Amino acid sequence: MNYSFNENVEKLVAYTPGFQPDDPAAIKINTNENPYPPSPKVFEALAGLTGDALRKYPPIFWDDFRKVAGEVHDVSPDHIVCGNGADELLAMLIRCCCNRRRPMAYPVPTYTLYPTLGDIQDCPVIEVPWGPGCQLPKELATTHAKLTFLCNPNAPTGTIIPVDAVGELAGRLDGVLAVDEAYVDFAEDNCLRLLKEHDNLIILRTMSKGYSLAGMRFGYAIGSKPIVDALLKVKDSYNVNVAAQVAAKAALADRDYFQANVQKIKQQRNRVAVALQSLGFDLAESHTNFLLAKITKPTAKDVYDQLIERNIFVRYFSQKELNDKLRISIGSVEQNDALLAALNDILK
Amino acid sequence: MNYSFNENVEKLVAYTPGFQPDDPAAIKINTNENPYPPSPKVFEALAGLTGDALRKYPPIFWDDFRKVAGEVHDVSPDHIVCGNGADELLAMLIRCCCNRRRPMAYPVPTYTLYPTLGDIQDCPVIEVPWGPGCQLPKELATTHAKLTFLCNPNAPTGTIIPVDAVGELAGRLDGVLAVDEAYVDFAEDNCLRLLKEHDNLIILRTMSKGYSLAGMRFGYAIGSKPIVDALLKVKDSYNVNVAAQVAAKAALADRDYFQANVQKIKQQRNRVAVALQSLGFDLAESHTNFLLAKITKPTAKDVYDQLIERNIFVRYFSQKELNDKLRISIGSVEQNDALLAALNDILK
Repeated sequence: MNYSFNENVEKLVAYTPGFQPDDPAAIKINTNENPYPPSPKVFEALAGLTGDALRKYPPIFWDDFRKVAGEVHDVSPDHIVCGNGADELLAMLIRCCCNRRRPMAYPVPTYTLYPTLGDIQDCPVIEVPWGPGCQLPKELATTHAKLTFLCNPNAPTGTIIPVDAVGELAGRLDGVLAVDEAYVDFAEDNCLRLLKEHDNLIILRTMSKGYSLAGMRFGYAIGSKPIVDALLKVKDSYNVNVAAQVAAKAALADRDYFQANVQKIKQQRNRVAVALQSLGFDLAESHTNFLLAKITKPTAKDVYDQLIERNIFVRYFSQKELNDKLRISIGSVEQNDALLAALNDILK
Repeated sequence: MNYSFNENVEKLVAYTPGFQPDDPAAIKINTNENPYPPSPKVFEALAGLTGDALRKYPPIFWDDFRKVAGEVHDVSPDHIVCGNGADELLAMLIRCCCNRRRPMAYPVPTYTLYPTLGDIQDCPVIEVPWGPGCQLPKELATTHAKLTFLCNPNAPTGTIIPVDAVGELAGRLDGVLAVDEAYVDFAEDNCLRLLKEHDNLIILRTMSKGYSLAGMRFGYAIGSKPIVDALLKVKDSYNVNVAAQVAAKAALADRDYFQANVQKIKQQRNRVAVALQSLGFDLAESHTNFLLAKITKPTAKDVYDQLIERNIFVRYFSQKELNDKLRISIGSVEQNDALLAALNDILK
């Protein structure tokens, strides 16, 4: 062969996203998608896309979205940077902060995309196990990583670190702290107020969960100006298409729809949690739109397989600390009914 | 400051895209956008997006698009990889092939994003000047770069290297050859047939030019299986949103609309070229949707500024080998009328 790839790419194992069943009747509660459609304003915004909007390059700096996001979050628009999904922003952060001599760190278990993104950039990865009950491990503050990810609330555990503890971590680190708030829409608190005190902090948000726009790939980050400016340097010139920009703006601006959507999911989360516990599952309190439910008899893998036979897809991770648990996204009332009926049947 | 960025990022100068005027009445012929709207089938496809399509993650492997592209180009779908614009595919190729010990190469002048993408990945860049009349420089075959870009037809010169010469280059290189066919829709030939002979070859296409979808950011690459598989490893899990996927599929499938669109632009290209020559501009034959037009009295910069005063935006590059030229995208009949009238006025 007269060509070759970078050594880290040759060794790379691609990230495995949750399974996407073809059958539209399948109950897909394996990737933490929102069970409800996005705001009607999103459909209006998409219907308003003109030939001119499609034939021209999209806004480079997402002006309209940033204006709305600045108002919603009470920050200056030039402290906001947008991505083709928050995943792109994670990759951009690693490109800014890490290389083979500059490691990244994060507590585990967490979002399994982090190490894949680290491997793509050939950067050493420092994994620090969570403390008991998923508390913040002290060692995370002293890794000397140039970039520390904290998924908060965390996936797949559903747990949350209090804002004060995150602030203390930011103050102790000698690198950038990226708080991945992908699931914060379903939590009671968030880290935005820490931005006033910590200039090594950047907070990531997504439109995929509380705003029902996973299909449109739109994430954004709010942080100190130097971090935002570094991200702007490494971004693709036109990294978010015009459809995603108008859809995200419309969804973010419709606060009433968003709050009602999130409220429905939180209610269902409580209902499903109680039902799972009465079925014998063990679970920690969730601050997200999913539950991590432990079961040993029958095994989690066995329950997972039996659910698939019933056309119900939840998430199972084979790694050691997770292989006795299932991660179950909160679905619609009807999806949750079907899940609980199936589990009743499997476990009876 | 208790944090820092990678040295190459600190030094990085972000890519400067063409200016985007706010005024909708402005004549914007500075970024090689298509002056005509996309196929009506694109609007139908976007209108067909359901709440389910938006709330769920998009297809990971762009199945529907790849099927159509496989038919249109007579290749197997698994030799195709899609990107959030061809720009993302360029970046992914560098991530696969280059690092600080593995350089990239390309002839210059060419697309000025290449060196920026190289700098983002901290990879050495070898620039080889075009031969006389923008012929392929022999030295390009012996740089020992791990990745060679050939923009063909080339921007901003509009010139083309014959397919046989590209094949010969592919055979002589000891690295990957990426032929960036962003403008090939307006040329008479393309390099797809070389894929049968050269497994170090990958060909990039975009929906931004001939298909009028710059706003939707959709590019794709066709290449040997090992190169496609490497790209799949470094891609974002869900790198193209569902709107771009359905729009690109609809646009690519509507062959009649595409061919008529391209035909109109080629006719206008010929008309504008003749008119510019009669106004005293010097130009090489263009195989793209733009013209690179040389003028020294008045200076290109002067003409550029005077066009802006008339609300007409063309592209001016200040670098040495280009600062006596203007790059002018082929607009609609009316836009070209306005351009030529303005130039008549400026040069009279």
